[in-house]
Amino acid sequence: MSKPEYFEDFAVGDTFATQSYTLSREECVAFARMYDPQPFHLDDKAAQESIFRRLAASGWHTAAVIMRLIVRSGFLEKAGILGTGIDDLRWLAPVFPGDTLHVTGEIIALDPDLKGRPFGRMRVQLYAINQNDVRVMSEIANLTVGFRPA
Amino acid sequence: MSKPEYFEDFAVGDTFATQSYTLSREECVAFARMYDPQPFHLDDKAAQESIFRRLAASGWHTAAVIMRLIVRSGFLEKAGILGTGIDDLRWLAPVFPGDTLHVTGEIIALDPDLKGRPFGRMRVQLYAINQNDVRVMSEIANLTVGFRPA
Repeated sequence: MSKPEYFEDFAVGDTFATQSYTLSREECVAFARMYDPQPFHLDDKAAQESIFRRLAASGWHTAAVIMRLIVRSGFLEKAGILGTGIDDLRWLAPVFPGDTLHVTGEIIALDPDLKGRPFGRMRVQLYAINQNDVRVMSEIANLTVGFRPA
Repeated sequence: MSKPEYFEDFAVGDTFATQSYTLSREECVAFARMYDPQPFHLDDKAAQESIFRRLAASGWHTAAVIMRLIVRSGFLEKAGILGTGIDDLRWLAPVFPGDTLHVTGEIIALDPDLKGRPFGRMRVQLYAINQNDVRVMSEIANLTVGFRPA
């Protein structure tokens, strides 16, 4: 879609796709050490004995990479777009060091009815997809988007 | 509660609380630069003109800190506890550099009915709470937990 600036410029069904991003092993381990220090995110041998079979990225790392890709895409550089919450976040498949992810988004709901507030609500279905076209994570982002000034 | 190891050891209504963690300004900016490079997470002046009024941590940083605190609490060091997804994640109040967060958890559902699989499902209501006793984020974690071996 073109570059909408205000709530009125969006429509249910609008889609977008981001650039891609490759997670290095170094980044995966650094994120996990700080925020998700479970053995299968840190240590090869422990990971081999886990359900993942090899070192896997933290699911919260995948969530953070999705945010990075969306911010870099420019989608949020609009009037008053702000995230208020996430619904139905699901880790669908493991993410491994070396994987290359991109994100697709589709606007699934727009609700202007906010009792006089200067913004409406938007819901966006997001998928993170790896280099093999496998969906590794899904989530629905709840956003506020400013109305066009009168 | 004591140290349950298997699905059968948990009960709806069980609660836990983690240690606390203080987010430094350096860490907030480093996380945002990497994963959520929006002006109000990076730059004081831009933040002053935003809804946050001052530099705020990324909401995904708060989510990552919650995970850190839960892992460090030992709650996940049980048989086969694995996160499959998150429901109803809400950023309730801003988190600022210097804030000290801790997490409370309550088991709100246990479902053993998994058609012969060796684990049950658990839902845990989580809150991140700051040093002023304000809930800054809530989420429901969906986990699998292994049954006690026969």
